[in-house]
Amino acid sequence: MYVNAIELEEHNEPRRKRLAMELEHISEQVGADKCRQVIDLLRKFEIAIPSWALGAGGTRFGRFGFGGEPSTLAEKIEDVGLLQQLNRASGAISLHIPWDIPEDPESIRRLAASYGLRFDAVNSNTFQDQPGQPYSYKYGSLHHVDVRVRKQAIAHNVEVIRYGVALGSQSLALWLADGSSYPGQLNFRRAFANTLESMEAIYAELPSDWNLLVEYKAFEPNFYSMTIGDWGQAYLLASKLGPRAKTLVDLGHHLPNANIEQIVSLLLMEEKLGGFHFNDSKYGDDDLTVGCINPYQLYLVFSQLIEGMDARGLTHATGLAWMIDASHNLKDPLEDLLQSVEAILQSYAQALLVDQDALREAQEASDVVRCQELLQDAYRTDVRPLVAQARIEQGGACAPVEFYRQHGIRKQLMQRRGVHAKATGL
Amino acid sequence: MYVNAIELEEHNEPRRKRLAMELEHISEQVGADKCRQVIDLLRKFEIAIPSWALGAGGTRFGRFGFGGEPSTLAEKIEDVGLLQQLNRASGAISLHIPWDIPEDPESIRRLAASYGLRFDAVNSNTFQDQPGQPYSYKYGSLHHVDVRVRKQAIAHNVEVIRYGVALGSQSLALWLADGSSYPGQLNFRRAFANTLESMEAIYAELPSDWNLLVEYKAFEPNFYSMTIGDWGQAYLLASKLGPRAKTLVDLGHHLPNANIEQIVSLLLMEEKLGGFHFNDSKYGDDDLTVGCINPYQLYLVFSQLIEGMDARGLTHATGLAWMIDASHNLKDPLEDLLQSVEAILQSYAQALLVDQDALREAQEASDVVRCQELLQDAYRTDVRPLVAQARIEQGGACAPVEFYRQHGIRKQLMQRRGVHAKATGL
Amino acid sequence: MYVNAIELEEHNEPRRKRLAMELEHISEQVGADKCRQVIDLLRKFEIAIPSWALGAGGTRFGRFGFGGEPSTLAEKIEDVGLLQQLNRASGAISLHIPWDIPEDPESIRRLAASYGLRFDAVNSNTFQDQPGQPYSYKYGSLHHVDVRVRKQAIAHNVEVIRYGVALGSQSLALWLADGSSYPGQLNFRRAFANTLESMEAIYAELPSDWNLLVEYKAFEPNFYSMTIGDWGQAYLLASKLGPRAKTLVDLGHHLPNANIEQIVSLLLMEEKLGGFHFNDSKYGDDDLTVGCINPYQLYLVFSQLIEGMDARGLTHATGLAWMIDASHNLKDPLEDLLQSVEAILQSYAQALLVDQDALREAQEASDVVRCQELLQDAYRTDVRPLVAQARIEQGGACAPVEFYRQHGIRKQLMQRRGVHAKATGL
Amino acid sequence: MYVNAIELEEHNEPRRKRLAMELEHISEQVGADKCRQVIDLLRKFEIAIPSWALGAGGTRFGRFGFGGEPSTLAEKIEDVGLLQQLNRASGAISLHIPWDIPEDPESIRRLAASYGLRFDAVNSNTFQDQPGQPYSYKYGSLHHVDVRVRKQAIAHNVEVIRYGVALGSQSLALWLADGSSYPGQLNFRRAFANTLESMEAIYAELPSDWNLLVEYKAFEPNFYSMTIGDWGQAYLLASKLGPRAKTLVDLGHHLPNANIEQIVSLLLMEEKLGGFHFNDSKYGDDDLTVGCINPYQLYLVFSQLIEGMDARGLTHATGLAWMIDASHNLKDPLEDLLQSVEAILQSYAQALLVDQDALREAQEASDVVRCQELLQDAYRTDVRPLVAQARIEQGGACAPVEFYRQHGIRKQLMQRRGVHAKATGL
Repeated sequence: MYVNAIELEEHNEPRRKRLAMELEHISEQVGADKCRQVIDLLRKFEIAIPSWALGAGGTRFGRFGFGGEPSTLAEKIEDVGLLQQLNRASGAISLHIPWDIPEDPESIRRLAASYGLRFDAVNSNTFQDQPGQPYSYKYGSLHHVDVRVRKQAIAHNVEVIRYGVALGSQSLALWLADGSSYPGQLNFRRAFANTLESMEAIYAELPSDWNLLVEYKAFEPNFYSMTIGDWGQAYLLASKLGPRAKTLVDLGHHLPNANIEQIVSLLLMEEKLGGFHFNDSKYGDDDLTVGCINPYQLYLVFSQLIEGMDARGLTHATGLAWMIDASHNLKDPLEDLLQSVEAILQSYAQALLVDQDALREAQEASDVVRCQELLQDAYRTDVRPLVAQARIEQGGACAPVEFYRQHGIRKQLMQRRGVHAKATGL
Repeated sequence: MYVNAIELEEHNEPRRKRLAMELEHISEQVGADKCRQVIDLLRKFEIAIPSWALGAGGTRFGRFGFGGEPSTLAEKIEDVGLLQQLNRASGAISLHIPWDIPEDPESIRRLAASYGLRFDAVNSNTFQDQPGQPYSYKYGSLHHVDVRVRKQAIAHNVEVIRYGVALGSQSLALWLADGSSYPGQLNFRRAFANTLESMEAIYAELPSDWNLLVEYKAFEPNFYSMTIGDWGQAYLLASKLGPRAKTLVDLGHHLPNANIEQIVSLLLMEEKLGGFHFNDSKYGDDDLTVGCINPYQLYLVFSQLIEGMDARGLTHATGLAWMIDASHNLKDPLEDLLQSVEAILQSYAQALLVDQDALREAQEASDVVRCQELLQDAYRTDVRPLVAQARIEQGGACAPVEFYRQHGIRKQLMQRRGVHAKATGL
Repeated sequence: MYVNAIELEEHNEPRRKRLAMELEHISEQVGADKCRQVIDLLRKFEIAIPSWALGAGGTRFGRFGFGGEPSTLAEKIEDVGLLQQLNRASGAISLHIPWDIPEDPESIRRLAASYGLRFDAVNSNTFQDQPGQPYSYKYGSLHHVDVRVRKQAIAHNVEVIRYGVALGSQSLALWLADGSSYPGQLNFRRAFANTLESMEAIYAELPSDWNLLVEYKAFEPNFYSMTIGDWGQAYLLASKLGPRAKTLVDLGHHLPNANIEQIVSLLLMEEKLGGFHFNDSKYGDDDLTVGCINPYQLYLVFSQLIEGMDARGLTHATGLAWMIDASHNLKDPLEDLLQSVEAILQSYAQALLVDQDALREAQEASDVVRCQELLQDAYRTDVRPLVAQARIEQGGACAPVEFYRQHGIRKQLMQRRGVHAKATGL
Repeated sequence: MYVNAIELEEHNEPRRKRLAMELEHISEQVGADKCRQVIDLLRKFEIAIPSWALGAGGTRFGRFGFGGEPSTLAEKIEDVGLLQQLNRASGAISLHIPWDIPEDPESIRRLAASYGLRFDAVNSNTFQDQPGQPYSYKYGSLHHVDVRVRKQAIAHNVEVIRYGVALGSQSLALWLADGSSYPGQLNFRRAFANTLESMEAIYAELPSDWNLLVEYKAFEPNFYSMTIGDWGQAYLLASKLGPRAKTLVDLGHHLPNANIEQIVSLLLMEEKLGGFHFNDSKYGDDDLTVGCINPYQLYLVFSQLIEGMDARGLTHATGLAWMIDASHNLKDPLEDLLQSVEAILQSYAQALLVDQDALREAQEASDVVRCQELLQDAYRTDVRPLVAQARIEQGGACAPVEFYRQHGIRKQLMQRRGVHAKATGL
């Protein structure tokens, strides 16, 4: 354990006075009851950390390691445990198979539990070939023209479900790199039909309390078409598969200028929104720190989610699978993830501050000036004290990144794991 | 009549020899039977001309007239008749209400028939306020928060259907400027629900042999969201409405880089593609001459359409509502439309030349090099002689734009209608 | 006068206590000296209001008036005066010729002065034809192939300079709709050369204390190319013209995903940034309220501007021509402009709070986590009290939009000017 | 040698008759003299093949090998030699250091000469760390805040020049992955100034008959800013460096919807266009086969190049550095390169067929309909026989891809080099 309660208290103690003052100020702004309500909701909110985001990512052109990367699943769990100790909002881990195969699920589960972690969605991988694999995914997997490739990919997914069951997961997240690079390469209809058929086979193996999360993605360098390229296609698949199939929205998987908050709203309306991949991006699927490029968009998405979940009677904390999906090329992944979780909590808190009754009234009156004022008023409010308070109340650090740096945790990890330790994955 | 058979023959006669030579050449390239088959299909193919595209368009910043614009519906029909006489592929007209109200439908129908024209989809307009209209469409129409506005918009659409019935149309094309300019202005779910409810009311009034065509559009300067912004939303509406509701794809109504050919393919698969608006664009909804910016994309779209329609057993000529939707800011609209129809016919002919059996085989073998060769081979073929031959066989002009210029038709129109005649519409 | 000092005091008085409390809070956050410094800079900051933004705008498809629009230049000045009385940061007006020709410049100047207004950049118009104009701008103006058209456009600009001199302006802003709609239409080099030659003629007529501001724009529906389409082209022209030619950056005039803050930084570096057009946009040149779509981008732009101007020793308030360029389709223009100015001042204040020394240090250490923390720390700070304080100190309203609504100013304007009054312009 | 003259003749012989017929047809279309002139120009035209494009590329997510990849520089030269034997238009190779270090330049040069190959631009690599390298390029190279990193990168470039001199190259192509991932990370001005200073040091080491080619790129997943992100920045650097510094345009390195042909035209005008990287793309820097997505754009670019080079008196074949830059993820790289070269030659031939006099006349008359007709007339012409004829006349294969397949060359390469041979590089 890199963090202990005494150190946390030593970190928090000198910050409490100022925090109390800031809480008092925001209480005067929005009311003490509202503050309490937001803090309580923040305490329940949890974002799953993906096992693949704990090592260095890279571009097509280069990858730069940083030392102390976790090279085993146990070390990855340790890293997420560390985050959870610091921010008390990262109590779940999302595994990627085969990068992180739990050889002994029981002991892995115990290890996670010792950090207070549960296992969120499991992720399969049919976008890379593994050594010894009979058929290649070069031309796709679930959409492949060759039934043998599809069967191999289906079998892999079924295996991933089995791992997930052993760990207590309750959903399978499906992201495919299936697509085409050249006009003419694919018959789009057949590719779609094959994908659907393959997914039906996987869906049939899904435990009754599981969800199948169908992720879409608009593009990645090298592609001309993606077989599940937009929310319409993901929705179509999910609606044909059945009620436990939902879509998974990744903020970075859209064409330029797409209105993601509207997509989210409509998917919620159709009961087909299943989960979220948080990150931020400037141009494409940049997988950058959440909220680092366009925090207002993140807030708008959250506003739609909150309003839509409330309308459906969904519990914020558990109604959707909340996950980060990011790639850490320059930043220390743990610092990056702390920043991301912080940004998510801030946006959630801001969205909770929107005066929904007044907004509805202004919308009904087509008073767009007022609509904007209401939305921006919540956004302009400095909610950082609420987030810090929720964290402290649960035993986390007031300022997680500062704590992490002051205690030289990366240095400790490097000493223990080595400078050249490299995380499995991409 | 601005064109007579003698003039046409005088125009065609000196061109026949060269055309014959070129036909012989392409027959050697692709086979005489194939040529004949393509010509026969071209002869049956017809693209509807929109009544609003016969005058000068404009941007937000300016509009430049050109003289001789048709200022009455009769003159617009005359213009389309002229196109039809020249290219024999523009035998339908798509009306826009209230810009072109047929006060006396029977006489209008007779006038059109005298040019060999039929009436394709009728278009309603709830994106502008008309003088004396009780409620404004400033904040939308079918999606409006105020039920009175929605009812007014529904009533207008029902009226448009009535005009259409009187003229022999069989579909109503719905394009809405409903959207929002500012985050917070709209509740997306309520906007969608209102739209659906309004469309249900319109659908209920649809004659049993009519289609309702739901058009989507990604953006237009001034908007932050469009209530029917992508194919997914149009599909959702059409599938909830019923079997006679379909989507209408306008080539210029997509986000940057969207793969339109894939969208087309999937909509056909789902039996939800109803019609097409042809044009071309560089950045947004530029409404430029078909094929002037990216003719290969047009060809790829046609390839998907042909393959998909054949798979469904749909007749090319009548399986979809084929329409041009363009805006003529710089070119003489009649010349522009002649160029557009020509580009459509060329793409159609090229798509017909694709060796579908070989392509399927190459796709099944994941031979992407061969897929591309097959697709590009058809595209690189110079099909202009086939298009010209189809035209001549039906009594049209070998080179329509040349004919139009040689006979100074615009000048005649200006003399008759005046230099400052201005078409109704935008 | 729609606003008087007594009413303002009645509005401000009950808000002072809360504002004082909020100021105290932010003083504790960032220091009292820093607050004072920011407030003092805010007091000096001024954004010019464009005369064309006071009436209803529109799209290609429709325009919806709102009543009480200013139909004369005097009324437009009255409107800007009203804004200035409320927010004390709109003390300049940017005129558009020929929409707002000051027939009697001396009296117009006196009228403006009576509201404490000065005249910022004057704008010419060669993107529309005016009645009686010998040559059309259909195919462009300064880039036109026909020298007579170019000369006419040059003469118009010289006339605009003359008006500007009479009013005390010191810069001419040049936005051209010159471009092409079709590949092949233009020879790009000749278009550029013609533009340069025309601008040289205008530049030669520029008073010695004037700047020529060259605006670029990436696209507008209907175009295939813009003759001044990006900052590179504007820079090229400005650098060939001479030291008093600069570029004008409009936030909405870029291709999707362009990094505008980087452009701004480089233009400043090259001493070629002359002015700014503020607005916000989702897709294209949407001309929406400043900060309504992506307030963080606005802040990033300001951060670059402040850092860059400080590095050059430029005074914030006067180093650049700060202007709004927006179009008001749904909102009351005066409310919209109040929101825009507010958003600009907030971003400016946030940018002033960035700890530049710490940021430089973090940058030098490639500590990107810290760079982000520093940048977001300033952004997350609730600077609204600073902006309100700066306004109140100068005699403005604590909450301008609220004041405007409480006093029913639009209603008064409608009563005086009529419901159907329509602003000159587009 | 995988290709010999006898086999080529056996391949060509049965195709000659049909080719002759097709040549006759095109001669009738455009005139025999014009055909001869185009063929002669095609014969002189040569596109450099990059040494890094001969093995399998990949995405961030996966790489799929194909067998028989060249694993040494000698084998890469052999591959390019093979292409050259087949298409007689690939007589140059562009090396990438350190992926392909010519340990013994003299023998490498002889080997290349034995295939009739020369060395075009050499490329440096400061976007990856090499084993044993003192300083990391994680945060950039020529723009780095740390002068030691910059010096290391400069030294590398100087070394690359030295290799290039030994091989007879005459230009250094500089592509940097220098940029930032997060707002705040970089001071844009300092990054630019550092880049300029570094380039000045490299420029100073440039032999007097060499060019420095500055490449720009808009984005790549993971970035928020690119230090040389658009043509404006590349131009600025090149113009500050001196007359032998030029820009390098890669077709895939632009923001969505950029008008590349206009950029090309202006850079030529300013004498700052130095070279070209051909490829095609749908969304980002997809590095797909030239002409596979948007062949008309390629043609438009060529039209501008031809017209602009003629205006400057530049020889087509040598006035610019013509290179392919593609990544081969699905196709056999040799087949892919054959398709790319073919597409380039076709576009070049089409551009040569444009009636420039008539086009100029139509432009001067603002006859945009005619401009389009002229441009499309050349484009619609089936120029494949001209390209084949130029190839055959020089001893190449009439149908290179067919030849390659019929002779099972990939199979031979796999047998000799092994199925798991892997090219050096990414």
